[in-house]
Amino acid sequence: MSVGLENVIQLPSIDGVQMATCAAGIRYADRDDLVLLTVGEGSHTALVQTQNRFCAAPVQVAKSHHQSTQPRAFLINAGNANAGTGQTGLDNAHQCCELVAIELGLSAEQVLPFSTGVIGQHLPMERFIESVPTLKSRLHADGWVAAAKAIMTTDTVAKGVFLQVSIDNELVTLTGIAKGSGMIHPDMATLLTFIATDAPIAPHLLQQALEHAVMESFNCITVDGDTSTNDACSLTATGTVKISLLDRDDSPAFELFQKALNELTQTLAKSVVRDAEGATKFVEVNVSGTRYEDCKVVASTIALSPLVKTALFAGDPNWGRILAAIGRAPVSGNAIDMAKVSIIINQVSIVRGGEIAPDYQESHGQSAFDQPELTIDVVINDGNQLARVWTSDLSHEYVSINADYRS
Amino acid sequence: MSVGLENVIQLPSIDGVQMATCAAGIRYADRDDLVLLTVGEGSHTALVQTQNRFCAAPVQVAKSHHQSTQPRAFLINAGNANAGTGQTGLDNAHQCCELVAIELGLSAEQVLPFSTGVIGQHLPMERFIESVPTLKSRLHADGWVAAAKAIMTTDTVAKGVFLQVSIDNELVTLTGIAKGSGMIHPDMATLLTFIATDAPIAPHLLQQALEHAVMESFNCITVDGDTSTNDACSLTATGTVKISLLDRDDSPAFELFQKALNELTQTLAKSVVRDAEGATKFVEVNVSGTRYEDCKVVASTIALSPLVKTALFAGDPNWGRILAAIGRAPVSGNAIDMAKVSIIINQVSIVRGGEIAPDYQESHGQSAFDQPELTIDVVINDGNQLARVWTSDLSHEYVSINADYRS
Repeated sequence: MSVGLENVIQLPSIDGVQMATCAAGIRYADRDDLVLLTVGEGSHTALVQTQNRFCAAPVQVAKSHHQSTQPRAFLINAGNANAGTGQTGLDNAHQCCELVAIELGLSAEQVLPFSTGVIGQHLPMERFIESVPTLKSRLHADGWVAAAKAIMTTDTVAKGVFLQVSIDNELVTLTGIAKGSGMIHPDMATLLTFIATDAPIAPHLLQQALEHAVMESFNCITVDGDTSTNDACSLTATGTVKISLLDRDDSPAFELFQKALNELTQTLAKSVVRDAEGATKFVEVNVSGTRYEDCKVVASTIALSPLVKTALFAGDPNWGRILAAIGRAPVSGNAIDMAKVSIIINQVSIVRGGEIAPDYQESHGQSAFDQPELTIDVVINDGNQLARVWTSDLSHEYVSINADYRS
Repeated sequence: MSVGLENVIQLPSIDGVQMATCAAGIRYADRDDLVLLTVGEGSHTALVQTQNRFCAAPVQVAKSHHQSTQPRAFLINAGNANAGTGQTGLDNAHQCCELVAIELGLSAEQVLPFSTGVIGQHLPMERFIESVPTLKSRLHADGWVAAAKAIMTTDTVAKGVFLQVSIDNELVTLTGIAKGSGMIHPDMATLLTFIATDAPIAPHLLQQALEHAVMESFNCITVDGDTSTNDACSLTATGTVKISLLDRDDSPAFELFQKALNELTQTLAKSVVRDAEGATKFVEVNVSGTRYEDCKVVASTIALSPLVKTALFAGDPNWGRILAAIGRAPVSGNAIDMAKVSIIINQVSIVRGGEIAPDYQESHGQSAFDQPELTIDVVINDGNQLARVWTSDLSHEYVSINADYRS
């Protein structure tokens, strides 16, 4: 199931980026599950990773390699997270990098490993040894859609987005792919995103641009930030478009790029929620009226409440559960004045001044809840800051998927 | 469904306490849904209520009445929470008290109102006006089991416990009933508990004793403390047993009483989890090794993780999800050393030193997860404090119950 989302079928290549996929048989039969992505010399890569203290071996190795040099190759496998695997897991992640380095004539530090899937099992290294030469022989520029498919785990839809924007009279392209369908509850090996652009971005601005974009996209579909064991999001700039280096964050050209990047990451983040495990609804929760941090806490509390989510699944305008979630949100002192709380869902005013709106009719609420896409607007006080969270409902299918995931 | 729990069939009366039930037709057809409980002159009552800032009208009225005088009567209805109902809701809660006060010759302040059920609907006051005289005519001493049944909402089992303990050579009795089956996600009108004892407890110790007992029982099945809109737990001491007043908290007699009260509230709290919505497993999570507060946060994070809970439902020893939950728990700085983390489930050592225990076999994990009752012991560092949380699994039935609750 997914809400208003279809498999990506076309993504433009990025000059300087090549990729290959193969069916390595790591976990799944009869489908590609291993991706090699290479980026040309002179490319720069920014990287954002999970903050979970129980981070997987590839997360640790990728972090260390990224700190020591600019990456030239990414090896990504689906089906096995290589997390909770101790020293053997670290050794295996290092060996993955070495296999690619030998094949491509790089140093191991120039290779970043990524894994997603089940926690607590060792990688079948013989499958990697056998597959890496195959991957090298298949490298080509047009592999983005195949890569988007190969990194899927419980995803039902291959996710990819591109954007083209004119900067200094040249067409700049951004292409990105993502996998993940459990980010609403970010405690699983869920989200991987790889983005590339041909724009020339100064290295010191690349990381800043990515962090800014992630803050307003992927971090809006989590509670605690990127807390799964394996989450990672990378942005590579190959710089092959012939425009001046984007090296000042207050320049109009950089602002154009940042805006495009934000839009791309938001679309990818929303596509993860649209394909959330068992999702039948796509829900945007907007909370305004007090400090941003407190608005975010309230939005997340609503978005994660199992009772709100089951009501959304049922299409039951049980707005009392939203009020109860607001009431228990762990915010600072007087951030919420219950007597000022309003709730508007798909333009239907349901709660005003902390109680049922006088003109509210259940049939109007029912119409709003019947929609596959809902916007829940909540005002909790007099301020003007706003926080946004995207989420899904909690369905039988969610329970089935997660009860059956390893079987 | 419930796990290892049956309807209570017998509860001893408490000298000085009378009760009555009737089918008022507030929400349910063909069952009792309204309870009147009276306590004799000279009784003292301690009260603990929800901390949810969006608290229901009866919670506000009961709090105010309890602060002004000692209660003589409790009126409890099931099916309608009288929450999110504004000034009308407050007026209705006051009228409930007045109806009882007139009938029994009390002041309205001597009556405490309690409501549980759906949020956001006004109480049908004509049902109360009609029913209160009936309730008065039915008052008798042996109504505890009937009352336990009448306060149920989504509960599948009527919950009650009693304990008798010898203090100063006299038999002291404690009898308690509870309703609630959604406290694992404490954002619904869930938990009501009424306890009475014939022991003479000094008023200043009664509240302390109740708060102490609640901390180690009902607060162990919640994340944020008592955060539903309507939760309340009361303890009445009628003092009819002829022993000396228990007026010092370091006396052996009071310690006996406190121990009995703790045991009674823990059994009631666990019975709420055993009857949790859709529960097929009863799970105790013990986390030790660092500050109590951090242990509690980790235990709650595990207990509330939808991925852990669906794995428990499936009987899938997917211990990686427990490690991932530990890894994302919002604890202070270095409270967790992942390299020291151990996980033992029903005596099966699964994780040691942050990775798979060398002698672990999946078949042993499977045997542990196949049990209806699980104990998850987690060690996260070298300290010796321990926090305990009781929880249930997340099943299809949970989704069904909460998707269908209002329909």
